[in-house]
Amino acid sequence: MTQEKVRVLIVGTGGVGTMAAYALESGGKAEVTAVMRSNYDAAVKNGIDIDSIEHGHDIKGWRPTARGSPPFDFILVTTKNIPDVKPTVADLIAPAVTPGKTAIVLSQNGLNIEKPIIPRFPTNPIISSVSYIGATEKSHGKILHDDADFQKIGAFSSPEVPADVAADAAKRYIAAYNPAGKLEIVYEADVRFVRWRKLVYNSSFNSIAAVLRMDTARMRMSQHVIDDLIRPIMLEIIAAARACGVDLADEVAETVIKTDPTDTAFKPSMCQDVEKGNLMEIENIVGEPLREGAAHGVPMPTLRTVYGLLKGLQLQVKENRGMWEAKFEADNPYQ
Amino acid sequence: MTQEKVRVLIVGTGGVGTMAAYALESGGKAEVTAVMRSNYDAAVKNGIDIDSIEHGHDIKGWRPTARGSPPFDFILVTTKNIPDVKPTVADLIAPAVTPGKTAIVLSQNGLNIEKPIIPRFPTNPIISSVSYIGATEKSHGKILHDDADFQKIGAFSSPEVPADVAADAAKRYIAAYNPAGKLEIVYEADVRFVRWRKLVYNSSFNSIAAVLRMDTARMRMSQHVIDDLIRPIMLEIIAAARACGVDLADEVAETVIKTDPTDTAFKPSMCQDVEKGNLMEIENIVGEPLREGAAHGVPMPTLRTVYGLLKGLQLQVKENRGMWEAKFEADNPYQ
Repeated sequence: MTQEKVRVLIVGTGGVGTMAAYALESGGKAEVTAVMRSNYDAAVKNGIDIDSIEHGHDIKGWRPTARGSPPFDFILVTTKNIPDVKPTVADLIAPAVTPGKTAIVLSQNGLNIEKPIIPRFPTNPIISSVSYIGATEKSHGKILHDDADFQKIGAFSSPEVPADVAADAAKRYIAAYNPAGKLEIVYEADVRFVRWRKLVYNSSFNSIAAVLRMDTARMRMSQHVIDDLIRPIMLEIIAAARACGVDLADEVAETVIKTDPTDTAFKPSMCQDVEKGNLMEIENIVGEPLREGAAHGVPMPTLRTVYGLLKGLQLQVKENRGMWEAKFEADNPYQ
Repeated sequence: MTQEKVRVLIVGTGGVGTMAAYALESGGKAEVTAVMRSNYDAAVKNGIDIDSIEHGHDIKGWRPTARGSPPFDFILVTTKNIPDVKPTVADLIAPAVTPGKTAIVLSQNGLNIEKPIIPRFPTNPIISSVSYIGATEKSHGKILHDDADFQKIGAFSSPEVPADVAADAAKRYIAAYNPAGKLEIVYEADVRFVRWRKLVYNSSFNSIAAVLRMDTARMRMSQHVIDDLIRPIMLEIIAAARACGVDLADEVAETVIKTDPTDTAFKPSMCQDVEKGNLMEIENIVGEPLREGAAHGVPMPTLRTVYGLLKGLQLQVKENRGMWEAKFEADNPYQ
């Protein structure tokens, strides 16, 4: 008796999405359909080349097999999350979601990413993947996977979906992703803890790197960037997490400060984005934790200032992409 | 009976210094010696070309007349002030200062600029010039003077120099600078008020412009840069000033927000510096007001965060100029 494969649609095929597609297909338990955008032509013509520390360094011309249409068992979303720019994640996946059936796996950074998804798809399980993979699309169709595919996966709480149904969906997804158990894809019921824990890094190193265009190694060499900015932001995030009932200890800050090595220069994603002129994921990485902290009366002055600066940088990205226009007029509202 | 000319040495001949040299010489009451650095060759060979809204648009090949040596009646300092980089202002002027005679005129931005000067030259009057001139050296020896030469001048308090002696020196300097009274060079006894007042602009617009590389018109168009960053910093500066006994009203913030026009893009000095890879005047514009505020228990979280970021940018400027070297080692102190 052959078990039927689960049908997975992947939206967003940069490094993370492509490695998920490869893991799901090569595990033999899933049939993957990929929605590509900028890299579609390269992928169709030549397939995708992958240099992976876990799946092999010389994978050439690989293609996801299926050209599936709904219904899907899972939709994996690995796009960036820029809530103020259309189409939103919900807009993008809506045509492919079968109510009451498709589980939506959000493999994206930050806090409250499920908030706009739940009301649009109230009967669908919403699953959180927090990924620590290192996987980058170096050019269209060329993927470098240089840090292990480690994910913590669990269900978001959604009012109309029973908790056990959502948890089962998360476990079925893990089983399809990692049938041989060779990857570290871990079920983690406490989704909020995992997301706040990862924010300790992202709201500090990631956002300061973007403002300064500085790698994390130089930040640690400077010492003052750590002492004046990184650690204060981390402690603000930890305080906000605790106010929200997520029990992060202050000591987490020192552990996370030592996460990245000091012998190589690494620039986190928001820094890479701003240097490439791409929009940054500001709202879920910085705006939402600030709003959670404010709702609980937690002062977060360092991160609040950085938020204002990131919005200023984002405005410049938008201007350069033709999404905002400067109007030089003497009757400006502030004049 | 002809009155003897006062002897003035000018250290730092960018736009501000050159226009001071021109005003002092052309007024007929001063003999100016200029210490030039990067622009020396151009100035010696061709003289200096000046396009001035107050002195004439077509001044060609002008040269300061004197090649004087000490004693000087006045030393005017218009260099940038980067206290952590040698030579300091005090180092630079020391060979030309005659104790008990030479009055030292500091035409530089920020707070506490007299602090390192007083102990080195305890018997010399120290004079503050806060300048609102618009004057830029467009290339070596080419000066554009496009906003009126408006200065507020008075004496810093120095323990061993009687207040009336210092005030007289300030008034003599004004008389030599503006003998015909055609410029707005104003005696202002309350030096601290004037300096804190100008900081309301410089610590906010100037520092945020540097971090964002954004002109002040776009800041006002964005609105959120004003609301999230500029106004909070201004109110922190105003609170620190009041704690130091300088009576600035909160309303000053709205006035200063409207200082620059919104129909042209203007980038303040620190932004111009960082874009050109030059060191920024961080300590006197941001560090010193923060330290004054901290000494009086005034919370200044927005400016404190910006200070940390500016120091991070300055480190990058220093690295690019060979003044700091990144050491990629696994045994970094933070590892």
